[in-house]
Amino acid sequence: MKVNGEHYRTIRVIDDEKSIVQIIDQRQLPHKFVTEDLLSFSDIVTAISDMHLRGAGLIGVAAAYGMWMASVEAPDEPAGFERHISRAAEILISARPTAVNLSWAVGKQIMNMAEALTTENKRKSARKGADEIADSDSESCRMIGVHGAVLLEELSKRKGGGVINVLTHCNAGWLAFVDWGSALSPVYMAHDKGIRIHVWVDETRPRNQGSSLTAWELGQHGVPHTIIADNAGGHLMQQGLVDMVIVGSDRTTATGDVANKTGTYLKALAAHDNDVPFYVALPSSSIDWKIEDGIRQIKIEERGADEVRYIDGMDSSGVVRRVLLTPERSRAANYAFDVTPSRLVTALITERGICRANREDILSLFPEKRDKDATRI
Amino acid sequence: MKVNGEHYRTIRVIDDEKSIVQIIDQRQLPHKFVTEDLLSFSDIVTAISDMHLRGAGLIGVAAAYGMWMASVEAPDEPAGFERHISRAAEILISARPTAVNLSWAVGKQIMNMAEALTTENKRKSARKGADEIADSDSESCRMIGVHGAVLLEELSKRKGGGVINVLTHCNAGWLAFVDWGSALSPVYMAHDKGIRIHVWVDETRPRNQGSSLTAWELGQHGVPHTIIADNAGGHLMQQGLVDMVIVGSDRTTATGDVANKTGTYLKALAAHDNDVPFYVALPSSSIDWKIEDGIRQIKIEERGADEVRYIDGMDSSGVVRRVLLTPERSRAANYAFDVTPSRLVTALITERGICRANREDILSLFPEKRDKDATRI
Repeated sequence: MKVNGEHYRTIRVIDDEKSIVQIIDQRQLPHKFVTEDLLSFSDIVTAISDMHLRGAGLIGVAAAYGMWMASVEAPDEPAGFERHISRAAEILISARPTAVNLSWAVGKQIMNMAEALTTENKRKSARKGADEIADSDSESCRMIGVHGAVLLEELSKRKGGGVINVLTHCNAGWLAFVDWGSALSPVYMAHDKGIRIHVWVDETRPRNQGSSLTAWELGQHGVPHTIIADNAGGHLMQQGLVDMVIVGSDRTTATGDVANKTGTYLKALAAHDNDVPFYVALPSSSIDWKIEDGIRQIKIEERGADEVRYIDGMDSSGVVRRVLLTPERSRAANYAFDVTPSRLVTALITERGICRANREDILSLFPEKRDKDATRI
Repeated sequence: MKVNGEHYRTIRVIDDEKSIVQIIDQRQLPHKFVTEDLLSFSDIVTAISDMHLRGAGLIGVAAAYGMWMASVEAPDEPAGFERHISRAAEILISARPTAVNLSWAVGKQIMNMAEALTTENKRKSARKGADEIADSDSESCRMIGVHGAVLLEELSKRKGGGVINVLTHCNAGWLAFVDWGSALSPVYMAHDKGIRIHVWVDETRPRNQGSSLTAWELGQHGVPHTIIADNAGGHLMQQGLVDMVIVGSDRTTATGDVANKTGTYLKALAAHDNDVPFYVALPSSSIDWKIEDGIRQIKIEERGADEVRYIDGMDSSGVVRRVLLTPERSRAANYAFDVTPSRLVTALITERGICRANREDILSLFPEKRDKDATRI
């Protein structure tokens, strides 16, 4: 997607010899567009855990490049190399425990390396594997857009070409992936086809990914949008001001439960209560085929309380400052995700097409998972 | 209630001759405790519309003192006095259109003045009437606490004396009234009786009345509490971490629909979905007996977008600063309230007792409204 008219991906290798990976430092958005060069495995881990980058897809791709970095830094001697890589995998996976793409990408890189015989080839495999994961992420997101845009086109026809109001939560745009995004990919694609769309952007406390990242992305692409407090969506739906909700997913169970940014569940309840379709857009890499009950089985990441107590914003002189919002001595808690049960999800939009949120319909799009599934039960 | 150990009311006359009304400037909380002296009708209007004070009950009481101020400033000549008072009433009512207590208090003051014959006596009536409204507000809130505390006591017994987790949204504590509060009055009263209570405090974007006012109040009173993003309540309820929701109400219909701070509806949906009791505490002055369908008939105040775009907080040097949270050019919208339909409300807690949220049960507590009601249908 474009920043000031120039095409960007959220992550790319800018120096192969020195193994330098460049990302967008999303902590500076929406106030400043800053890229950051990551020079080591440790830089990648910091970027993931301190959320210089975030988003289901991008975390996975960053981890894949992290595994490449680890392979570059690992000793040549085979046993030492293996130990180094195993340790790196553990560190990466624990950096963001809820994100399934992360462990998926790490696992894929371990397999890629296992297939090569020499240490040098293992490094090359890791480099190539990371690129493939990045390209595949981008292509999956593009296909989510192709399928999802059809829903928007149909709705636009039913409304006689009137403006379609989409509500989204958090940032599941291209900043969360390599390109295109999941929830926003259909929006971008439909907008580019001339369909009239307006997006209600949930602010998404406590980290404000909506008001900072989604609003910024949509603004760069010229999509009309309005930022609202997370509290406002229910009222908008009651008043008929939302035609469709589209959100992303950090982890989806084989049965269609959706773990996504905290507050998603509340919007799903409101959509259900007001007959507003509630879509979840996701690349299949974020489906956790082993999990059946999202509410009981998905571990919800608890992040630091200071993300609730403090906020960053730009003061009148253009300086980004951190300010305290709460009484000094009040405790705060920060549950970063919640789980939306499948019964509240109208459909899933994946790179292979659209399906209802239940095991059978999901498997009909991903039949290759059926056998694995059968052996498990 | 107490501030640093000293008893305060949120509003009081500190100089009768010069007609000076003192309030707590709630915009400075939680960082600074500052009182403000209001010297004129115009000061009161500014305090209401710019939210130096807020909250269903307190707005009404402030408006009552505002009518007294207007009577002091009005000309002695009867026709001029009437015109001045009518104009003042209009200005006050339009300062916060959703708050039913405001128009109720203004109407009551007009009647109080109408009963007096001389201008001087009208002024005295307005002064006395304002005090009566303030005392009645305080007493209503105390009685809400008496009735509501029984619910908490019963729950405490059922939990074998274990900690009761109450979730609340916005600020319906004593800062929203003259004393005690509505939603928090049962909490204070039960806490004072030694019942173990912990309160989940919704931050309440965009104005953060929860994280600034409710957390501050609870802290001053020594009630254990934890601030959460508005998005987190659904997850907490899914995980069994909320025993009861208690919120206030800005306007309640005769049929039990509840207009309250934006986001209340989302919490009611989550409570309903997880079998968590959802109580609404309100003095009957906030019941609008003429309205039947909250979603269609209650006008929702749309406030300035900058309340969403900017936020105030204290920087590391102790200075309260306003910072921008969104892209400069992104639009924002600010729907300040929403309506929770009565079907999602477990019960109403009023100064006369607890009743289910339907016309018949409400009228059983307020039988004097039944006749008026019968003539209307």
